[in-house]
Amino acid sequence: MNKPWGGRFKDDSSKLLEEFNASISFDKQLYKEDIFGSKVHAEMLYNIGILTYEEKNNIISGLNKVYQEIEDGDFVFKIQDEDIHMAIEKRLIQLIGESAKKLHTARSRNDQVALDFKMYCLNQNKEIRLLLLNLIETLLDISKNHTKTIMPGMTHLQHAQPISFAFHILAYCFMYMRDVERLIDDYNRNNYSPLGSSAFAGTPYDIDRNFTSSKLGFNSPCYNACDGVSDRDFALDLLYSISMIAMHTSRFAEELVLWSSYEFKFITISDSFSTGSSIMPNKKNPDVAELLRGKTGRIYGNLVSLLTTLKALPLAYNKDMQEDKEALFDSCSNIILSLKVLIGMLKEVTINKDEMFKKAQIGHITATDLADFLVQKVGISFRESHHIVGKIVAYAESKNCDISALNIDEIIKQDSRITREAKEVLDLNYSMNSRKSFGGTSEESVKYQIEFLSKWLNEKQAR
Amino acid sequence: MNKPWGGRFKDDSSKLLEEFNASISFDKQLYKEDIFGSKVHAEMLYNIGILTYEEKNNIISGLNKVYQEIEDGDFVFKIQDEDIHMAIEKRLIQLIGESAKKLHTARSRNDQVALDFKMYCLNQNKEIRLLLLNLIETLLDISKNHTKTIMPGMTHLQHAQPISFAFHILAYCFMYMRDVERLIDDYNRNNYSPLGSSAFAGTPYDIDRNFTSSKLGFNSPCYNACDGVSDRDFALDLLYSISMIAMHTSRFAEELVLWSSYEFKFITISDSFSTGSSIMPNKKNPDVAELLRGKTGRIYGNLVSLLTTLKALPLAYNKDMQEDKEALFDSCSNIILSLKVLIGMLKEVTINKDEMFKKAQIGHITATDLADFLVQKVGISFRESHHIVGKIVAYAESKNCDISALNIDEIIKQDSRITREAKEVLDLNYSMNSRKSFGGTSEESVKYQIEFLSKWLNEKQAR
Amino acid sequence: MNKPWGGRFKDDSSKLLEEFNASISFDKQLYKEDIFGSKVHAEMLYNIGILTYEEKNNIISGLNKVYQEIEDGDFVFKIQDEDIHMAIEKRLIQLIGESAKKLHTARSRNDQVALDFKMYCLNQNKEIRLLLLNLIETLLDISKNHTKTIMPGMTHLQHAQPISFAFHILAYCFMYMRDVERLIDDYNRNNYSPLGSSAFAGTPYDIDRNFTSSKLGFNSPCYNACDGVSDRDFALDLLYSISMIAMHTSRFAEELVLWSSYEFKFITISDSFSTGSSIMPNKKNPDVAELLRGKTGRIYGNLVSLLTTLKALPLAYNKDMQEDKEALFDSCSNIILSLKVLIGMLKEVTINKDEMFKKAQIGHITATDLADFLVQKVGISFRESHHIVGKIVAYAESKNCDISALNIDEIIKQDSRITREAKEVLDLNYSMNSRKSFGGTSEESVKYQIEFLSKWLNEKQAR
Amino acid sequence: MNKPWGGRFKDDSSKLLEEFNASISFDKQLYKEDIFGSKVHAEMLYNIGILTYEEKNNIISGLNKVYQEIEDGDFVFKIQDEDIHMAIEKRLIQLIGESAKKLHTARSRNDQVALDFKMYCLNQNKEIRLLLLNLIETLLDISKNHTKTIMPGMTHLQHAQPISFAFHILAYCFMYMRDVERLIDDYNRNNYSPLGSSAFAGTPYDIDRNFTSSKLGFNSPCYNACDGVSDRDFALDLLYSISMIAMHTSRFAEELVLWSSYEFKFITISDSFSTGSSIMPNKKNPDVAELLRGKTGRIYGNLVSLLTTLKALPLAYNKDMQEDKEALFDSCSNIILSLKVLIGMLKEVTINKDEMFKKAQIGHITATDLADFLVQKVGISFRESHHIVGKIVAYAESKNCDISALNIDEIIKQDSRITREAKEVLDLNYSMNSRKSFGGTSEESVKYQIEFLSKWLNEKQAR
Repeated sequence: MNKPWGGRFKDDSSKLLEEFNASISFDKQLYKEDIFGSKVHAEMLYNIGILTYEEKNNIISGLNKVYQEIEDGDFVFKIQDEDIHMAIEKRLIQLIGESAKKLHTARSRNDQVALDFKMYCLNQNKEIRLLLLNLIETLLDISKNHTKTIMPGMTHLQHAQPISFAFHILAYCFMYMRDVERLIDDYNRNNYSPLGSSAFAGTPYDIDRNFTSSKLGFNSPCYNACDGVSDRDFALDLLYSISMIAMHTSRFAEELVLWSSYEFKFITISDSFSTGSSIMPNKKNPDVAELLRGKTGRIYGNLVSLLTTLKALPLAYNKDMQEDKEALFDSCSNIILSLKVLIGMLKEVTINKDEMFKKAQIGHITATDLADFLVQKVGISFRESHHIVGKIVAYAESKNCDISALNIDEIIKQDSRITREAKEVLDLNYSMNSRKSFGGTSEESVKYQIEFLSKWLNEKQAR
Repeated sequence: MNKPWGGRFKDDSSKLLEEFNASISFDKQLYKEDIFGSKVHAEMLYNIGILTYEEKNNIISGLNKVYQEIEDGDFVFKIQDEDIHMAIEKRLIQLIGESAKKLHTARSRNDQVALDFKMYCLNQNKEIRLLLLNLIETLLDISKNHTKTIMPGMTHLQHAQPISFAFHILAYCFMYMRDVERLIDDYNRNNYSPLGSSAFAGTPYDIDRNFTSSKLGFNSPCYNACDGVSDRDFALDLLYSISMIAMHTSRFAEELVLWSSYEFKFITISDSFSTGSSIMPNKKNPDVAELLRGKTGRIYGNLVSLLTTLKALPLAYNKDMQEDKEALFDSCSNIILSLKVLIGMLKEVTINKDEMFKKAQIGHITATDLADFLVQKVGISFRESHHIVGKIVAYAESKNCDISALNIDEIIKQDSRITREAKEVLDLNYSMNSRKSFGGTSEESVKYQIEFLSKWLNEKQAR
Repeated sequence: MNKPWGGRFKDDSSKLLEEFNASISFDKQLYKEDIFGSKVHAEMLYNIGILTYEEKNNIISGLNKVYQEIEDGDFVFKIQDEDIHMAIEKRLIQLIGESAKKLHTARSRNDQVALDFKMYCLNQNKEIRLLLLNLIETLLDISKNHTKTIMPGMTHLQHAQPISFAFHILAYCFMYMRDVERLIDDYNRNNYSPLGSSAFAGTPYDIDRNFTSSKLGFNSPCYNACDGVSDRDFALDLLYSISMIAMHTSRFAEELVLWSSYEFKFITISDSFSTGSSIMPNKKNPDVAELLRGKTGRIYGNLVSLLTTLKALPLAYNKDMQEDKEALFDSCSNIILSLKVLIGMLKEVTINKDEMFKKAQIGHITATDLADFLVQKVGISFRESHHIVGKIVAYAESKNCDISALNIDEIIKQDSRITREAKEVLDLNYSMNSRKSFGGTSEESVKYQIEFLSKWLNEKQAR
Repeated sequence: MNKPWGGRFKDDSSKLLEEFNASISFDKQLYKEDIFGSKVHAEMLYNIGILTYEEKNNIISGLNKVYQEIEDGDFVFKIQDEDIHMAIEKRLIQLIGESAKKLHTARSRNDQVALDFKMYCLNQNKEIRLLLLNLIETLLDISKNHTKTIMPGMTHLQHAQPISFAFHILAYCFMYMRDVERLIDDYNRNNYSPLGSSAFAGTPYDIDRNFTSSKLGFNSPCYNACDGVSDRDFALDLLYSISMIAMHTSRFAEELVLWSSYEFKFITISDSFSTGSSIMPNKKNPDVAELLRGKTGRIYGNLVSLLTTLKALPLAYNKDMQEDKEALFDSCSNIILSLKVLIGMLKEVTINKDEMFKKAQIGHITATDLADFLVQKVGISFRESHHIVGKIVAYAESKNCDISALNIDEIIKQDSRITREAKEVLDLNYSMNSRKSFGGTSEESVKYQIEFLSKWLNEKQAR
């Protein structure tokens, strides 16, 4: 009987139970947070007179040693130790003896687990944010070079209006910018320390939660101990925010796959970020973009997983909550790797301007311009001009050519109110640069967007 | 051929397609936002010289008339009108004639839909927040009356430590407080106007997006038109935040169901919030609490729904995005009704203090206090004292009584280091009030929490 | 106090509760099943002597009258009636008086709801199956006309090997065939009658469950009454099977969207199944295909919804289970409409053979054939031949032409072991028809698949 | 350049890409299936003359050697080998030289992966089924001992009617029985071999798919090669079926948690299947039951994961599909461990008959019997008798006693039509045994259910 909670039990745990209950195989990832938390807890226990100076020092240097052993790969994780918290404490006892047993005073595994897991989530939050900033920077670099690169802007995957490639890429920058802002909001809203909640009801020891909270980098201790151990909002918020990054990335990845197809040819993914086929020697596959898209599944699944687990759980702690970690670890490591790979791929991608421009000349994508011209210059209502241009498009289709290739006389034949200046607005460059409205695709508008984002980025990176 | 986009088409849409494509059966809910948006758009068009003063006035008074017709139930929604935007425009044309057709200048259905839906989401965000504040107030009122009411605090649904009912209820207050804060964060992060994004690339008209944005109550126009029409983050953020409220509520509802069972009897739900059985005359069922719990399913499902729909969608607008609304409408109306019902039920619930206290005397729930006593007063390490108390618990079990019912001599017989003062700490009231740590369950700590929350609530309600 | 379960209650239900608890707004869809079930129940009650001959006849003709009223739209559904079962019973009492009250003998709302809902699910199962058979027939018709139509078969959206359009379409036939088989399995596995389970424990009345079960078309009564009222597997099975149909359809819809883009041009969707843009007169959008794809979200969401609701519900009936219906109704009506629209669209779609063939000549898609040739005719191992052909592809790329456009001398220059007959295998037709293996794309193999499916279809349609 | 598909590539893959793309860290679990598939493929290649007798024998004995190395833990899995298929082939080449390279003739990684993964799923299907049968047997054993054990049957977690513990447990047997049947249906519907589909279009080699299909234990080869490599229905079917097992188990686990609480005390979980608290020496927690319930989250999440990944994927193979495995591996291993632990726990659980009976005497649970009595013996309509009994219940409540404790004179005072025999039906045993209807809770009905299930179980176990 050597479980720390074994006093009242008669039988030994069966092997099966051990395998089922133990979390050490995955929660060992929390060793940094656990040791950091314990060191600060020990300091606090010394401050309030529970540990002597010597005991505190012994504990801290013992914990440092355990830390080093884990970092060096010398620490043996055993399933019998159940979880990382027990494993570290047990080793600490081996190293420094009885005084180690005092460390768990005024603390429970419940608040210890909540603390470690929350610190882990907050740290991952920061790391993911940094990668997003890096990604936005990479996209901004691309944008700066392509404010004049014309591509066929699409809705419904149909050619719609001419836009610049920069303008399109900037749309992703703003999505990822919101992701950064969401992560910052999550961070601030959850940055409260559960340490000192003890089992769930607080503790009779005269502990100093403000000291531990501030030493560990939190805003303040959490205000209710029961909430402190039963709350997993911080993990769900992160799972959700990662889901949003994955969703945005899946849209981008879909476009990268499309753009690198023979049909689009808008981009060429570098060899290093492509793979081949074991059977077809002609294949060069955008595997990386596909995997980026495919990983959305597991990331959504992880969100559903924890939402489901927490549904209808009574307070305070329940063992179900042990299931909170693997989903989160998986989402974090997958989004981090995904963002790194995406940045790497973007740095090497080739933008095929000429192909984009060639494709932009298909699909009557300046038809809206003609409609707008009829409104602005000829004074026809928009609904009517839309109808007139629809007929001209149908005429061009019947001639098997693009509306921009029609000569002005043919156009005027469709509606005699049309004037000869109409021809000009059918030009792709003219069209793109005419969309000068705030947020539009004109070079002028796009440069403003780049400037705005660069400034925002600088501010965030400065922190 | 009378579809506004019908110019280039030869055949009529089939009936089937109409039923499949039309969104008017549900998006008619957006009529307020649509009319508000159109009125501000018309004003702006007048400001920049596209509408004459008279045209603008005609449009605005026409829109007011349409609004009144809808409010009065006199407006006939037809599936042929496809969506609320077309339905309103068509009626406006009937009412004021040709000038109505100028309203759609420099605007597309894409940015119009995005605008209406975003304003709807932001409005719902506010309404849900108000209800949460109301709920927190109701819970605070209960807490104030129960800072001395002792119940068996539980982990793993097993009696753990004595806590006050107020302390337990406050845990929910802090969950709902985070929900309010999350909604505020969502609101601010998404409060950017898509109006003026036009189809997705901006417009050549010299529009004033700052005017419309500020008149409609936004922070500023969104910065990229393509993002403006393809973004649905604001809807997902709301679906997620509602999921969190539902998750918290499902935990509370689970407890209400448990507490009103014959086995617990902690509370009695009023007759108005209970129902009976068609076959069993003895039944009084906590149907409301069960439904509150059961609705978590549809609310999670709605989140999954939109996440799935948006996965891997290329930019800019795709028709898939029409599927964004019903899920959101459903989550909003269900959480609003749920919160109202929960508040109503809580106002009438009876707290059975005596039953709670009776149950608190079962399960050795002051065992931790004894263990802490051995550490603090006798100087035994916590790990060892835990073991000693475990043995005393086993002894009490063998006597078929609670640890608090043992007399001190029996206790000392288990370990001679135990002193006679140990008896005191086994008292429930003593135990509860000893947990004075910040966030703990002692009356002192709980009063601080109530004060803190009341202040926070006042601030939020003042806005 | 006129609720049928109102005996022990003192207060009236509040309005709010009524709105929250009532299910009549959606469960009125079950009226057919409810009336059918009640009629058979009445017959049984007569058989065992509980109803007189006259009472039974009164009840049955009363129920027929209610049925007619509902069909004719003359029935007023009121929220105060709570659910369809109460509404019908109340009307029956109005129509035939006291004897109507005997109908509920030996029955509870619990088994009545389970019965109605299960019959509804089984009926929808059959209707969806019929539509799937119709869809497979439509796809088979297309396949028969395109066994010689060459398209570039793709993996990773990259040109891979030449296949026939029939072969590609047949892949979807086999997916939908599994969907039919899955529905049949679901039907048989769930076809057990809950009627007679009563509240959840059976009944002291000497009822004849075999009679009702067989009259209502079930295999047999379910074997355990508690399972009978708490089981919702049949609804989940249907929600899952619909999710699979939606998943398969989303893949097909994605291809339809791609194929109708300017870049692919493989197909032209008829005007009746396309829509335009309110702003861009040039647009013809594959809205129907996009909506088919987008609806996957709600259908997955509905599955998640019910899975979540049922998680961790204790036996037997809980009010949470009232949340089972709307999700299922929504999935059924959406998949039924989706399948109808898909069939309609396919009947009018134009297959652009020439475009497909043109695209098939890009991407070196007969490279595998050359590799296989080197193995079979020259005796090189596959791994080596794959490497050789890889180099030839790179050579062709450097020449900016397809491998099939290289002349044989250039090819031999890359590896002298290559013989002149190699040229033949680079031909698209030759290549496609060489894949004669069982299940392959050769005309011969494809015709076998069509034959197999036609036979299977005939068998299923005959039932 | 040593990737098997490296011929046309100029640059080396980056490290990052390797980590991102490689699947060997998890797909190494498929080694058994991969080697089995390869051996049968080699035999077939020999049969059709592609391999010589010696080559075939070399390959087979080489593969046997690789198998042994993996089993013995001597095989080094390297991330550079990408996946298990490449790793095994590379090792085979090291062991037997050039002839190994012929093994991949007429096969692609696409059909190889599909084959291995499908065989894995089918094998897991069988293993899970066996465990379910074992679980049902365990539950049947419990049922046999408790056909007379009375407990308060509940709906809405409120006491409803007296049932036997056997009857309640049998409800779970029937749920798990459906799970077994669902797995059998899945197995048969998916048991078609993809081997020979090659890349996705079949192969020009004259392969014998019937030979490999039958040797590997399939019904027949799949009928369309493109479907053969793009189909993952078999994995989703398994993920869904496991979700259903988890859902059923979560309901059971919820009850086990409730039943082992101080409030219910219906059961005592053995010490080996409970755990304690690190801080509270009094705690004995039903951790195993809680984890069983909590694992529902990840299992639902895994289903959502693959459904999401497959949404809108064009044919045939896409790299996204590599994400199919981890979710499935996780669901399989978790459900297998869960079922084992559940069986173990049930074998040691103590049923507290006396506590159950004590609780059954609370809540007027024979009220329905009285209502039925009034219908059957006194001739009052059910709706009316329900109302009368409701009033008697209210009377008992006002007296603070159970309806069964009222004396008959008091009862008759409530309604003079009630006769003195009414007292008998208020007895718990009488009540339970009166529910003799097919599927009811009477001892007679329950014994029939046990018999039926035992027979079914014998049949399934005999296979």
